[in-house]
Amino acid sequence: MKRAVEELAIFGGTPLFDSIKPVGQLAVPPLDAYLERLRPIFHEHRLSGNGPVVAELERRLAEYHGVSHCIAVANACVGLVMVLRQLVGGKRGNAIVPAFSYSGIPHIVQWAGQMPKFCDVERRRHGLDPVAVDRAIDEDTTVILAVANVHGTCEIDALQEIASRRKVPIVFDSVSALGASFGGKMLGSFGRAEVFSLHATKMLNGFEGGYITTNDDALAQVLRDQRNSGVVNARLNEMHAALALLCVDQLDDVIGRNEARYRAYERELASVEGLELLRYVDEAREHYTYQMAFVAVTDRWPLTREDTVKVLRAERAFAMPYYSPALHHSSHCPIGVAVPELPVAEELARLFMYLPGGEHTTIDDVASCGELLRFVHEHGDEIRRRLSENAA
Amino acid sequence: MKRAVEELAIFGGTPLFDSIKPVGQLAVPPLDAYLERLRPIFHEHRLSGNGPVVAELERRLAEYHGVSHCIAVANACVGLVMVLRQLVGGKRGNAIVPAFSYSGIPHIVQWAGQMPKFCDVERRRHGLDPVAVDRAIDEDTTVILAVANVHGTCEIDALQEIASRRKVPIVFDSVSALGASFGGKMLGSFGRAEVFSLHATKMLNGFEGGYITTNDDALAQVLRDQRNSGVVNARLNEMHAALALLCVDQLDDVIGRNEARYRAYERELASVEGLELLRYVDEAREHYTYQMAFVAVTDRWPLTREDTVKVLRAERAFAMPYYSPALHHSSHCPIGVAVPELPVAEELARLFMYLPGGEHTTIDDVASCGELLRFVHEHGDEIRRRLSENAA
Repeated sequence: MKRAVEELAIFGGTPLFDSIKPVGQLAVPPLDAYLERLRPIFHEHRLSGNGPVVAELERRLAEYHGVSHCIAVANACVGLVMVLRQLVGGKRGNAIVPAFSYSGIPHIVQWAGQMPKFCDVERRRHGLDPVAVDRAIDEDTTVILAVANVHGTCEIDALQEIASRRKVPIVFDSVSALGASFGGKMLGSFGRAEVFSLHATKMLNGFEGGYITTNDDALAQVLRDQRNSGVVNARLNEMHAALALLCVDQLDDVIGRNEARYRAYERELASVEGLELLRYVDEAREHYTYQMAFVAVTDRWPLTREDTVKVLRAERAFAMPYYSPALHHSSHCPIGVAVPELPVAEELARLFMYLPGGEHTTIDDVASCGELLRFVHEHGDEIRRRLSENAA
Repeated sequence: MKRAVEELAIFGGTPLFDSIKPVGQLAVPPLDAYLERLRPIFHEHRLSGNGPVVAELERRLAEYHGVSHCIAVANACVGLVMVLRQLVGGKRGNAIVPAFSYSGIPHIVQWAGQMPKFCDVERRRHGLDPVAVDRAIDEDTTVILAVANVHGTCEIDALQEIASRRKVPIVFDSVSALGASFGGKMLGSFGRAEVFSLHATKMLNGFEGGYITTNDDALAQVLRDQRNSGVVNARLNEMHAALALLCVDQLDDVIGRNEARYRAYERELASVEGLELLRYVDEAREHYTYQMAFVAVTDRWPLTREDTVKVLRAERAFAMPYYSPALHHSSHCPIGVAVPELPVAEELARLFMYLPGGEHTTIDDVASCGELLRFVHEHGDEIRRRLSENAA
């Protein structure tokens, strides 16, 4: 551990970790189990997607989410574009999206032929603010794309009520909320459809891939036909499905390890003044996967969030700002889209960073991060002074 | 072999083949070689795309195509949308596309924010007719998406000249033309960019995936940044790249087997009146992969193309109509798009079918198909009568 400020890696010291501690889940099943699954796919030349393993995965996931239909697709982005295009029915208009979210959102709605209309978010779950959505809907609104967040999904009930009353279809991007519940009910059957990811950094690792869930029989049929026809290349390959299936089996174990890491962060950060761990919303009642540890960098912390991230990254702790900048202020905001003031999104986008997590971060690593952060706090003035000298 | 019409599978006889004879390439390397490549990816947890194997594949493919940049992407459809979106620069207009092509074309241009403007094709290479393109360009034209076909690419020189003179960017969808040349030069460096596929049914099998080639440094950088940022999920996974790399090594062997099958079809069909094998254009000068055998079903053949496909499929020979119907007459033509008369596209769309090919079709299988087709010709009147009785 560091004994002096010059031992920090950002000032030339040896990094705290031997290898990068990432933020993604990166859970894998035992390689041999995977090869067992891979061999028949290879030998029977089931190479071009939508074989029996994909069908088995779809059944398992439909059961897991308590939903009628699961349609496996090439990735979540393609799945979202397919769903949105289907629901807007050829109209070109505005898709209501949260301004505090990931950078793909404005691109996805444009691929679906819509322009994003950025709305503010609420402070508890950090999802679309229902009041703002109700106000934002106008005659050009074609769809609401709500994003469910890892630590609290979003205000699903209120958003569904507005969508229903205003007769605008609502879709949930639940990529970050796989394994979470709302009102005690697992995500997967809310809105017209939900979309999940099978990317390696997410909860269920298919190396790559995604899936759509819906209780709407007609929508499911259309999406399945589109995928199977190869109209757009949206099929999921058997080799992805084989990996994801094995990962479904170990999901509870992965969640258990995530929660242990999260509780370790709780303990560590309790004694670090100025950094506040973001709590999972209503933990007593809801399910979560505890995949991420987000920390609010408050005014009582001696460094800016950006400097803190730099210090951590130099130590090979892969911290990063969370959903920052807000989308309407980012390079992802399309030219011509109005940039309103969205105070909550702007404030939250300045506030949080992720800390390392997933399978490559041990409880000891979390303890090391805690010790490092206490050291940074203790020597905050000196670090800040040295950083500004280096920058000058 | 069939001795009587009732022995045809469509009338209840035993199918000619024990398993389906497909049309896709479906070439795989030895499984053990693949597992050798897969093991380190798995053990080093290089799971989330764009690792060293992807970089190696990109170098190999750039060399193969004689082009400065190869950008591996999740699939060819995503690659095309990325390139088109970049070249139109936020404008919404018309993308000129061939009416005689695959069903994804109108969807891809819509995902790129454009509407398709269908143009007629020429009779030699079956690509965009340069005269028709020159006439079709107007102030709303944002891009030309030319499709290069397996048996003769398209009129690349003439199309590039028009694109340059009329100042409209041109992109080649070269998915079917991987391994083909034009004017003796390998495809990959024509137009502003070309897009290829790594789908299992195509020449280079990565299970899935695609890549963009271009000599435009600035365009390459933008596309690479977009892919790497994960703005849209466009990364190629290492496990796909590992498979594709092994398939590059065996490409010459695969092409050799394809050509042997194609020559067998030449021999077999020489004695089948009314079916004409589509020739590869200027074989003496150009490179081809001979992946496909297309047959024109002429008036001298006793059955319609559709009935011929039915008869063949019942025998488990997976024949299918080629690019049919023409796109402007298909369900893939978006509502509101003008449906002009495009006589060559319409005629070609009625004319051709594919015959079985790829790694699952042996020379003996080709001979069996030839024998079957001779039998069908000989008993054409009776088969036609029975089919119409069954339909009644």
